[in-house]
Formats: sequence, C-alpha cells, structure tokens
Amino acid sequence: MPVMVVGSIALDTIKMPNGKIYKDVPGGSCGYFIHSARFFAPVRVVGVAGEDFPKKHLDGFRKCKADLEGLQIRRGGKTFQWHGTYMADMNDRTTDALHFGVLGDFDPVVPAKFRKTSHVFLACSQPWLQAKVLDQMEGKTFAVCDTIAVYIQNDRKDLDKLIRRCQGMIVNDEEARMLSGDHNLVSTAIGLRKKYRLQFLVVKKGEHGGLLAVKDALVPFPAWPLEKVPDPTGAGDSFAGGFVATLAKLGRADLPALKTAVLNATSVASYACQGVALAGLTKATAKDVRARAAAFEKTVRLG
Amino acid sequence: MPVMVVGSIALDTIKMPNGKIYKDVPGGSCGYFIHSARFFAPVRVVGVAGEDFPKKHLDGFRKCKADLEGLQIRRGGKTFQWHGTYMADMNDRTTDALHFGVLGDFDPVVPAKFRKTSHVFLACSQPWLQAKVLDQMEGKTFAVCDTIAVYIQNDRKDLDKLIRRCQGMIVNDEEARMLSGDHNLVSTAIGLRKKYRLQFLVVKKGEHGGLLAVKDALVPFPAWPLEKVPDPTGAGDSFAGGFVATLAKLGRADLPALKTAVLNATSVASYACQGVALAGLTKATAKDVRARAAAFEKTVRLG
Repeated sequence: MPVMVVGSIALDTIKMPNGKIYKDVPGGSCGYFIHSARFFAPVRVVGVAGEDFPKKHLDGFRKCKADLEGLQIRRGGKTFQWHGTYMADMNDRTTDALHFGVLGDFDPVVPAKFRKTSHVFLACSQPWLQAKVLDQMEGKTFAVCDTIAVYIQNDRKDLDKLIRRCQGMIVNDEEARMLSGDHNLVSTAIGLRKKYRLQFLVVKKGEHGGLLAVKDALVPFPAWPLEKVPDPTGAGDSFAGGFVATLAKLGRADLPALKTAVLNATSVASYACQGVALAGLTKATAKDVRARAAAFEKTVRLG
Repeated sequence: MPVMVVGSIALDTIKMPNGKIYKDVPGGSCGYFIHSARFFAPVRVVGVAGEDFPKKHLDGFRKCKADLEGLQIRRGGKTFQWHGTYMADMNDRTTDALHFGVLGDFDPVVPAKFRKTSHVFLACSQPWLQAKVLDQMEGKTFAVCDTIAVYIQNDRKDLDKLIRRCQGMIVNDEEARMLSGDHNLVSTAIGLRKKYRLQFLVVKKGEHGGLLAVKDALVPFPAWPLEKVPDPTGAGDSFAGGFVATLAKLGRADLPALKTAVLNATSVASYACQGVALAGLTKATAKDVRARAAAFEKTVRLG
C-alpha cells in the first residue's frame, strides 16, 4: 500500500560544529520522507520546488520510486531554503535563515490518483494547508501529522482542529511540551493522545529515542546508538517516513504494528544521521535497514 | 549471596520546585542502596553516621535486613547533610550546602565477616577511601564504583587507578563526559569501558534511562515512564542497588544477567522517585518491584 507525504522540498545550508558548511544540499520533510519510507512502501509526493531545484535531486527521488505527480515545479521560482547551525551538542541547533521562495504561497493539490491513498503524512506546515490536503482525500484516510512551535503559537485553533482529524501524530519533545503546557513528557504524551483522540502519539527525543503513547500503553524506546553523528538534519522526518510507511505496509495500527513501526523508523532515522543531508539514507540498502531494525529489536530486548 | 555497600548516610534537606521543603529526611548512598538492594540480596553496610541520626531510620535499615556491623555511629558527631533544590525540570538540581560532619574524617573499616563479600558497591566518595575498602577485601571481589565531578577534577590519578581495580562502573552522563572528554555518550560509554578494562559500564541519563556498555554490545535502555516524580533524589544509588544486588544474586555478569540487572535496577529506581526521600522505596513490596520489572521487560520489547 502506498503512503503519501505532503511537505517541503528544500535546499539546506548546514553549518557544523567544526565550522564546515554544506551549501544547498537537498532536504526538506519530503526529501527525507521519500528516502526513508521507500524501504517499506511506495511513496507519493505532494509538494513544491523552484526551477532551481537540481535535476539530480529529482532523479534521486525517482530512484526511490517516488511518484512525483503531486510535485509542482514552479517556473522561475526559488526552492525553499533552510540555513541552520549545529552546536557541539548535536541535539541543539539554531535556524539562521529561512527563504520560503515558492513554499510561501504553496497551495497543495492532491492529484486524482493520489486521493484514495490509505496513509498520509502531513509534515510540518500551516495547519490550514494540512487541512486542505485532508479535504481532498477520498475514502478512509489514516493521517499522521507533525507540527512546529510557530504554528502552536500562532495558529492554535486551526492546529487543534487539524490534529483531531488525524489518527496519529509524531512530534518533538519541545513541541509536545508547548502543546500540553506540562514539563513531564510522560504525562504530556498520555495527555495529548487522549485530548486529541489519536490512535497513537510519538514524542521524539532525538538521541534519547522517544515515547509511543497508545490507548492502553506508554512505550518508551531508546534511539539506535551512534558513536558519530555527522548530520542529524531530517532524522525526525526520516523517523516519520519509516513509521508511517510501515503502518501503510502492514495495514494496521495495533500495538505490535506500532512497535514494528518504531523499529523501522529508528533504523532509518539512524541512517539519516550517518551522512550529510540525504547521503546517509541514499547509501543505505534495504538489507542494511532491515538488519539494523532486527539488531535493534534484539539489543533493546531485556528479557 | 550478600552485597556490600560503602557510602554515605545522610540527612537531606530537599527543596522542591513548588517551594515545599523536606528537612532532615534520611538519605545518602547507603540509605538508598539498602532500601533498593534488599529486594534481591542481603545488604552489608560500611558507613558512618552521627549520634543525631534518628533511631527510627536505623530501624528502617534493620527492617531491610541490612547488616549494620560496618556502620560506625560517632558519639557527639553530626551526620552528613546534603541540602539541595530541584528546578522545574526535575533532572536539574543545585546543591545549596554540604555539611560533612562525621563523613569528613570517615575511615572505612570492613568488619572481618564482610571481607569475603563477593559483590561490593563503592558509592561516591574519595578514590583513596574507595581503594582502602578494596584493600581490606579478601578473595575474589566483584567491585562496582560510582564517582562525581569533584573527584574527577581533583583526584584524577587516584580515581583512574581505583576504576581499573573495579569490574564495573555506574556513573551519570555528565560525569561520564568529564571522564572521556567527549560529548557523544555512546562513544563515551564504549571508550571508558575499554579504557578502564571494565566488564561493564552503565551511563545513567535520568528520565532518559541509560547506556550499558559491555565488551561486544552497547545496550541503550529507557527509564520506566513516570507521570509524576515527587523526588528523584537517590534514584541513581537505588539503580545501583538494584543492579549490583541482582548480579550478586545471579552470581554472574554475562549479558543476560546484566540485562536482568537493568530491569530490576530500573524498577527500584522508579519506585525511589515516587516518594520523598526513602518513602517510595519503603512503600514498595517485593511483589511490586518484580511486577514492574516484568512489565518494563514486556513494554520495551519491540518484536
């Protein structure tokens, strides 16, 4: 079963703690989602890029067998840019600049052949835009969303409505705390899932893994241990890619399926961290990803 | 098989984020170790307290069936005091005052009947003092140590020697980073275990669980999720209590035994957080502790 992603296509400029700068590397939530979800399900893309987006990156998406019919390429337009700097603690980063370009007035159009996709990931964007995508879907849709601070602060009502239309949410610890107004991440995860009537909620904690909240369980899980993290950009969207694509593949979202999704998501997220931009994921093979998910399962099993 | 602990007996004064102050509550590494290790092995105590240490707390130790022959009670002396304040993020705390009292010139004497104890936990104290305990042991001793920043900064040579005499170490993330000079906790855990030729090293990460490093594996594990943490004081020493006592009980330290130790340690550490001072642990029954360890094993199993 295919999975659809709606999000950003980006050219990132990333400054590392050692001062090294990577300029105009491919990224965005769609970029990472395509390269991580591909191991588990065919990917359908709804997004927008400028004419400046290099053909080789589009070819990279096609190599992942992504269906790009929903990807608008705007003549004369500029691709969205994110400029960021990582601190010595790679969990910390600052955003130095955002150039929205064609993303600034992106109006998502879901192609007719995408409208019945069973699983949809609504990556970070304006809640009205995420809602507009859901409005175009037909049949039963299992929708999973993400969000960031700016929409929690400025569009809370729309955001609350949007989350309630979703079946799941995958969100960072800081955003989860902002949504709950509660410092404790455990009560935050349990409380938000309940409040928004979600089948599941994942609170991501970077190198510390995350928390999976479902109706009758709260599953804490660690991250795959990495001795070196060349570039954690996109690890969260890669986690979402592995997670939602696994649910699409399995066609169910019970606790065992969600745990399998955690395994696969953890595996691809760790590969995303092992190379700059998409390089960690493009180098990984399906065999690598499966092997690491299996090793992770065995490692964290304590009994 | 019994387990021996050498460490502090304390009267703590703890200020909570809500401003509430708990004055002269019983604690210290020995206090928490006794109350957590008791579920898995008989505990032998080497420590010192002042004449002001309330009889009811000593009775509490005796109720745990701890052998107090190595506990010196100094006539006219004052028990060690720790005064601390927790921030809104309960992972953060400040030490407001330390009154060493009788701990200031503590000279540990291991009673003859304790000298062949197979498993010893050397809680935080001066490395020369920890070494002096090992000097008094007879036969084969499985020693596990802990340390804190002040000894890493001021007694590094003695500390390095002491750690090399131990079979295992259980230490906090910040201390581990200070020892390794490396920000990445994974390479820190792997590197320190190797450097000190330890059978195992545990790096504790508070609410995020920890990392267990052994020769051929690095096991990341989460903490038991708690919606409320009334007082995390002593969680680390309680973790050590559950951990080392489990190894004493099992009589081996292979990976399955160490994983069982993680389960039991996580269970008792979580109970330690659920009441002020020792209350969380005193209220817990052996059945509670076993049930939570079993539930934790099942929860974190992902396959």
